[in-house]
Formats: sequence, C-alpha cells, structure tokens
Amino acid sequence: MTTPFGDRLLHAIREKKSATVVGLDPVRELLPPEIESRFGPGKISKILTHFCTEILRAVADFVPAVKPNIAFFEAHGLAGMESYNDVCAFARDRGLLVIGDIKRGDIGSTAAAYAKGHLAIAPLHVDDHILPLYEQIGPHDAVTLQPYLGSDSIFPFLTAGHTNGQGFFVLVKTSNPSSSDFQDLPLRDGGTVAEAVARKVHAWGEAYCGPESGLSSIGAVIGATHPQDLIHFRAIMPHTPFLIPGYGAQGGTAEDVVGAFRPDGSGALVSASRSILYAWRDQPKERWPRAARLAVQTMNAEIASALQRRGISLGP
Amino acid sequence: MTTPFGDRLLHAIREKKSATVVGLDPVRELLPPEIESRFGPGKISKILTHFCTEILRAVADFVPAVKPNIAFFEAHGLAGMESYNDVCAFARDRGLLVIGDIKRGDIGSTAAAYAKGHLAIAPLHVDDHILPLYEQIGPHDAVTLQPYLGSDSIFPFLTAGHTNGQGFFVLVKTSNPSSSDFQDLPLRDGGTVAEAVARKVHAWGEAYCGPESGLSSIGAVIGATHPQDLIHFRAIMPHTPFLIPGYGAQGGTAEDVVGAFRPDGSGALVSASRSILYAWRDQPKERWPRAARLAVQTMNAEIASALQRRGISLGP
Repeated sequence: MTTPFGDRLLHAIREKKSATVVGLDPVRELLPPEIESRFGPGKISKILTHFCTEILRAVADFVPAVKPNIAFFEAHGLAGMESYNDVCAFARDRGLLVIGDIKRGDIGSTAAAYAKGHLAIAPLHVDDHILPLYEQIGPHDAVTLQPYLGSDSIFPFLTAGHTNGQGFFVLVKTSNPSSSDFQDLPLRDGGTVAEAVARKVHAWGEAYCGPESGLSSIGAVIGATHPQDLIHFRAIMPHTPFLIPGYGAQGGTAEDVVGAFRPDGSGALVSASRSILYAWRDQPKERWPRAARLAVQTMNAEIASALQRRGISLGP
Repeated sequence: MTTPFGDRLLHAIREKKSATVVGLDPVRELLPPEIESRFGPGKISKILTHFCTEILRAVADFVPAVKPNIAFFEAHGLAGMESYNDVCAFARDRGLLVIGDIKRGDIGSTAAAYAKGHLAIAPLHVDDHILPLYEQIGPHDAVTLQPYLGSDSIFPFLTAGHTNGQGFFVLVKTSNPSSSDFQDLPLRDGGTVAEAVARKVHAWGEAYCGPESGLSSIGAVIGATHPQDLIHFRAIMPHTPFLIPGYGAQGGTAEDVVGAFRPDGSGALVSASRSILYAWRDQPKERWPRAARLAVQTMNAEIASALQRRGISLGP
C-alpha cells in the first residue's frame, strides 16, 4: 500500500518547512500582457499553461502543495481543460502535492465516475488497461468535495483513493458572506449545520489515518476569515487535515490561521491565490514569477513566526 | 431579452406532451458491445458519442429535455469531455433542452468562471470575442448546482444565465440513502436543512419568473423516492421547476411523482437514465435505440395516466 495521504502531507510540510498552498486561479484578463502577446489571443491553453508553470517553477521549492481551481480552466472549455491537465502534471513532476479544487459532489455510480476521472494517477491500470493522460483529469493527490449529499458522495472517492495515498477535503465552513445561509443554521439538537458536517467528517476519517501523522485521508475546508472557527473546528476534528483558503486577498492573516495547527505543527494547509499570482501588479520592478516567489516567502515567514509565538514549528 | 427559462420549459413540455427527461449516464461496460467493436477500444470519445446520439435520435420526438451527467464523461478525461460537448450540441440541434447535470458549486469569481464555461451558448460574444465550442462546456440550457455555499454560489450563475433564457436546478432533497446525513437534520427554528434550502430557492427565484408560466429560472432537484416530500416541497416552492431524478431503476413510480406537478400540468421534469439507456438488456429482440424509445413512451404513458387520474394534463 502507498503511504496514506495524512502521512504524505506531514512529510511534504516538514520537507519544505511550509504550510503554504499556492492556489492557481488564472484569470486571463489579469495575466501579464506579455504572455498573450507571445502566444496570441487564440492560444488560451498555452497562455494558461505558461503562466501557471512559470509560477510553479518559481515557487516549487518553497511550498508543499498547489491547488489548481478547475473552474478557471473549465471557463475556457476543452482548451482550458487541456491546460489544467498539463499544469497538474507539471506540478506533480516537481514533487508538489496537487490538490484539485474541483468541489464535486454526486452519489453512487456517478461519484465513482468522478473518482475514476479525477483520482487516476498515471500510469494507472483501470479496467485492465493503462489510462493515458487524456483519459484522466489531473493527476490529483487530493480533491475538494461537497458535503450536501452525505456519505454516499464521499465514500466512493475514499475507497478509490485512500489506498493510492490520495486525500479529500470536504467543504465544512467557508469564508464567503453567504456561507451563513445554510452552514450557520442552528440545529434543534445543538450546534450548527457546519458543526454537524465537521462531526461526520471526523467520524468518516477515523479509519483512514496515517500511522505516522495520525492525520486522516479526509480533510476539511475551513475559511481563514473566521479565526475562532478554526480553533473550534480543530477541537471537533483533531485528526483532520484542514485546507484553509482566504489568506491574503480575502483578508485572512497568519494570526488568524494558527488555531488550525496541531501542537506538532501538522494538520493545516493555508492557501493563497491572488496575493501570490498577481503580486507583480504591486511590484512593477520585479519580474512576475519572482514577485510570486517573494510573496510565498513572505507568507511562509508570516505563518512561521505566528506559529513560533505559540511554540509551534513546521519542521525539524 | 430571450424567453425566460420557466416559459421555455413550459413550451417544451406542452409541445411534447411529456415531462420525461432522459438522463445520459453512459457507462462503457454497459454499452452494446457492437459499438466498441465498431470503433475499437481506444476510441472512447466516439464510443460515448455514438451511443448517446443514437439514443437522442430515438427519443428526441418524445421528450422535452435531456440531462447529460458530466461525471460519466469526465470519467474519461479530455476524450470524454470532447464527447460531452458533441452530445450536448447534438441534443440542442434536435431542439431539446439540455440540462447539464454538473452539480457545481463555488463562489464569487470562481462561480463566475464556471458560469462562463458552462453557460455560453454558441455563438456567443464574451469579452468581445466569439466563443468557439472548444472554449465552452455544453452548450447548456440549464445546469444543476450545489447549495452548501449559499447565495454567493447561485447568483453568479443566475445573473449570467437568466437573460439568456437559461435555468438552474439547485439540489434540495436527494433520493440517496445518506441524503439524511445533513438534508434531514431538524433545525432549532423548525423544519429541516432541506426545507431551509427550499425556502431560499423559492425566495431567490421570485424575481426571475417567466411571465407566461409563472415558473422561475431557479429550479430544485427533489428525489422521486420520497413522494410525500414532493407534495410538501411543492407547497414551499409554488413557482419553482422541479427536476426529479430517481424514476425507474432507482425505484420512483408515476404515482410517486404526481405531487410535484402544478394543477396546470407544469412545473416538473421527471428524469430516468438506466431504465431507458439500458432497456435493450431486458428486451433482447429489440435494437437498443428502439428499446430506449419504447421505454420513454411507456414512461410518458405512465406519468400521463397518473396525472389524468388527478385531472391534470401536460398539453392542450
């Protein structure tokens, strides 16, 4: 059996001494104009791939994982999806964990179909033939999932992925304003909807913990803009890896996220997208890949010192 | 402005005198072996497209809409996605409403990115250039959406789609066993989580009703295996189109679904997949497209007579 996802996550964070995840959300209109000039406006796949792979080259030594958001590639149809696969493969080749931010959610055979497309790691034997890359999406080390359909929408992924060392981050409490529409609704028996989801995520993951890390293959997405939530949800889900979007451009700070980390420094990944990808816009003297690297190094330092003030370290 | 989705739905159902939706969930291993023999095992895109388009040719005159489930195409990576686009385009050319069962859910700029990819109808001007088909997914007349992130994950789609005559079906109450994990949780202030989602779907849709039908551009997915739920949710959401999966193979019957229809026969689409696509497996004497057509005609007749017993008719 492959190393379980929880242990892979621990190793990656220790190796890089970083819990920073670079979110790849490329918006064509925000990219450096030189890229479009170089490839021409009809070459959207090449434009997206060039931008993302140059960012990856610049940051790969300083982060354990990347989180390509498939929506920004689907926005360009098949051409965008082609780029998505190329970007994921490039990140894996550089030793990064690839967390596909796909937010899928469906049940039974449909969930199994998504799992087949999104969890294959090339070269992989499926149905007695080797899956070529054009028969997969990704490759992914982990994907994000929706909770609304319950366990039927989680276990088909888990059973397909856990023994491959793959992980899953279930949406629990998000950082957008309307997360209160349903996630914060108080339940008759106490707690909120998001807390009920957290308890299920915890329970689902108990049988899928890495022996070294004690971290489960089923993680939780918890927004960075509610720091007290992170402490609260950490108590509900002690062995659950947290994926925390919302750092930087969405308002989360290093002080906000420290509550998500376990005392040994494990258990949390903090994701930033726009503040890294578009750092060059505020630093006109820097080339854009270098501006991204500097932004990552700054974020690493901010998180490390906020953790250090609590006696927590990310690496040996 | 284009005709709003609610009115388009009403016209399509009246024209065909049918509320049946054919779910396109092609599973390679279940397809007629002659197709794989004809194209060869490496040609997955052609295999999926041939199967789906032959089914569409056979049923197009008898149903108002089709529901391709993108998971079964994503299962085959880019090759599958290519087939997905071809199948959606073929269905639209035959005058069918295409409901993309994509179950996406994300917020803000990410939701807008999904909307851009999934709601463009070719030829469409976006960002001052015409989107070619390879820069879109679909084309779709409607898509299914996840509710967990709240209104932030609905309105970017709605604002992009409503004026194009496009619609959205938000998951409210599904038919899978673990739908009870979260959807049935009782709330402190009364009702369940699914009922809270239903009330929001109703409220979000009030400003987006078609003038002729009184049906909103925001619909709800409600499983067919809970007949009392359909009556209950119809009362909560009087102007909301219902998309009802679970007919046939998943156990729902015509008697189970009648409660979803409004007195004028409008407001509900009933979806079946396996019982139509694989009808030939139980009827070895029929060619598979004809077996699918017969299954559709049987389902139409079953629903029409169950409605008739309540004095409801689908067409003039």
